[in-house]
Amino acid sequence: MQNIYSYKETNLSLNINMENQKIQIFDTTLRDGEQVPGCKLNTEQKLIIAQRLDELGVDVIEAGFPISSPGDFNSVEAISKTVKNATVCALTRAVKEDIDAAARAIQFAKKPRIHTGIGTSESHIKYKFNASQDEIINRAAEAVYYAKSFVDDVEFYAEDAGRTDNAFLAKICSEAIKAGATVLNIPDTTGYCLPDEYGAKIKYLKENVIGIENAILSCHCHNDLGLATANSIAGVINGARQIECTINGIGERAGNTSLEEVVMILRQHPRLGLDTNINSKLLNSTSQMVSDHMGMLVQPNKAIVGSNAFSHSSGIHQDGMIKNKSTYEIIDPREVGVTDSSIILTARSGRAALAYRAKKIGYELTKLQLDVVYVEFVKLADRKKEIIDHDVHQIIQNSNIGILV
Amino acid sequence: MQNIYSYKETNLSLNINMENQKIQIFDTTLRDGEQVPGCKLNTEQKLIIAQRLDELGVDVIEAGFPISSPGDFNSVEAISKTVKNATVCALTRAVKEDIDAAARAIQFAKKPRIHTGIGTSESHIKYKFNASQDEIINRAAEAVYYAKSFVDDVEFYAEDAGRTDNAFLAKICSEAIKAGATVLNIPDTTGYCLPDEYGAKIKYLKENVIGIENAILSCHCHNDLGLATANSIAGVINGARQIECTINGIGERAGNTSLEEVVMILRQHPRLGLDTNINSKLLNSTSQMVSDHMGMLVQPNKAIVGSNAFSHSSGIHQDGMIKNKSTYEIIDPREVGVTDSSIILTARSGRAALAYRAKKIGYELTKLQLDVVYVEFVKLADRKKEIIDHDVHQIIQNSNIGILV
Repeated sequence: MQNIYSYKETNLSLNINMENQKIQIFDTTLRDGEQVPGCKLNTEQKLIIAQRLDELGVDVIEAGFPISSPGDFNSVEAISKTVKNATVCALTRAVKEDIDAAARAIQFAKKPRIHTGIGTSESHIKYKFNASQDEIINRAAEAVYYAKSFVDDVEFYAEDAGRTDNAFLAKICSEAIKAGATVLNIPDTTGYCLPDEYGAKIKYLKENVIGIENAILSCHCHNDLGLATANSIAGVINGARQIECTINGIGERAGNTSLEEVVMILRQHPRLGLDTNINSKLLNSTSQMVSDHMGMLVQPNKAIVGSNAFSHSSGIHQDGMIKNKSTYEIIDPREVGVTDSSIILTARSGRAALAYRAKKIGYELTKLQLDVVYVEFVKLADRKKEIIDHDVHQIIQNSNIGILV
Repeated sequence: MQNIYSYKETNLSLNINMENQKIQIFDTTLRDGEQVPGCKLNTEQKLIIAQRLDELGVDVIEAGFPISSPGDFNSVEAISKTVKNATVCALTRAVKEDIDAAARAIQFAKKPRIHTGIGTSESHIKYKFNASQDEIINRAAEAVYYAKSFVDDVEFYAEDAGRTDNAFLAKICSEAIKAGATVLNIPDTTGYCLPDEYGAKIKYLKENVIGIENAILSCHCHNDLGLATANSIAGVINGARQIECTINGIGERAGNTSLEEVVMILRQHPRLGLDTNINSKLLNSTSQMVSDHMGMLVQPNKAIVGSNAFSHSSGIHQDGMIKNKSTYEIIDPREVGVTDSSIILTARSGRAALAYRAKKIGYELTKLQLDVVYVEFVKLADRKKEIIDHDVHQIIQNSNIGILV
């Protein structure tokens, strides 16, 4: 039988470089994340999180939207002065005053970036701007050109690119590059795309944007249908080289791509030949820090950072885990900063898990003893949500099987 | 410009039937969901949820794992007697006693199904069973054959199929069909697969399993890398006709595929030609019911059912939403049982949202008045997480712009 991690049977046709290519991680926890109801942070909190993101190894920190409020301006400025390694980015609309404010707010950053753009879908052009496609292209190019007068690094976003006609998207992206854009952000603003569509869109742009060799494509996906992570991965498989994401996937509506998910997918799938600069051991504590400051709960069943992500509760799974961890665990929890996977005793646990726990608290049970104790265990577990060590101890002591500690 | 919802530019090559094909929804909230730490339910609670799942329109309710405990046995039996429309399914290992218990527990069901199977990956065969591939095939076929002596409808699972060699998987599935299996469940037990891999696996089985015309393929995906939903959709695009999922995506570790996500993806993407029998208007209340009974929180940024899923907070988005909902919303919230989308005022809100809210509470502001009020609004919003109607009223009254109500 072949190695369990090889995929020769699948019909994939990926171009794999043996040397890993780097995917830039653009963190927008402090911009797209912070604009969520209830998530508002003060400047001090934003600085603490920005410093942690820098330690985590993100390549770009989107620090805020300076024109939106004086508080946000001050935060972006403070972050620009503090961050040591990452690029600090500020958001603007394709509006002169926005770009002026952004340029002032990031003037002290070691690596400043202005992120400017405009809606490009039929819905946005018609209902938001009441404009023509040519007018939109002009406004986009002017905004990029103007931003470029302040900084070298200008990212252009084509808002609602997920629902934008690909030919028009290629045209506006070509003009943005001509005006000086270094990064092209292709947002699936409404979280509408399926992974194959989003991947095909990136592939089309990679093949049809004039001057694309002078810029990188960036994935910015929303999670309205639960597909943000899959879409971002489809994007980088098809040639994008930056992912825009947030800690815990927070963001407008159902949120953005989860940083922790895309980072660990690339790490668990080395055949893709893609990796990030993230120190994954800081993922768990960073998740908790952001959740605490923003008061945004992470559900227990959240991938990678949920409190149950490495808990095993069913009997079949626990039995396998005790025999060999690879049976039910693909990530070593220590890789993401979790101390260890846990085996939790419930009514769905089997004999193997009970014997394992009994042994941990000092009881070496024979098969016959285990049979007796297990019957009592299941009776109690049917009444309680979870069985703790004290319960196991009591059951064994009351079982009259001749064991005394 | 083309219609925003057509995709002629993408390089998809799907076989689309003009008439929608039905995807069976197999709900395992009461089995894979309930085995999670803290989620334990008593029989009465399980009955309430099972009845609601039946109203929701799921095709199969996996009610439990009867051999695991007397409490679980009783719950499966009670659900079997109560459910009116859905098939009631019971889980077993490929073990005679398990199948006996399952058959007894579901004997009163209108449409009973036994779900039996065994681990098929190299890791499971070696570490869990210490067996050969031929022995595993024999045990699988015997279990299906034995289950078939009790019920017509037997589903076979190849545990850890996500990491199982495709050729071996096709072989064991062919034998399961020969022994009488009506459904073949292909679980990505550890949540390891990428969507293209999982889709390719389903396609391979559709093309290589002998007798596949007599059975349907089922997707059972776990969310360890945040890809359960995308993998399930890749599965049905490639020929699977059942999705195993849970309300709110609860389940072992990072959980299972979210029922609400796959249902709404198929509904939002009619070009796929696939649909389910789910009454989507019950999704939101069912999510709350399950969360309440299990004490498992749903994070605000959960797709479809999170409390923020239809909240718009940034100024750019609010402005668009006020002009036309299609700019930032792909699902009408009423379609999933949410009263309406909401526009929440924060420091990231713009003039349009403030004017909109002011109008709702009785103030018709001129552009000049709005400019004055907006400055005060932003100052307050920088200090508060959220601005409520009372705040807007106060700001306007204190702004000395000659407005009195």
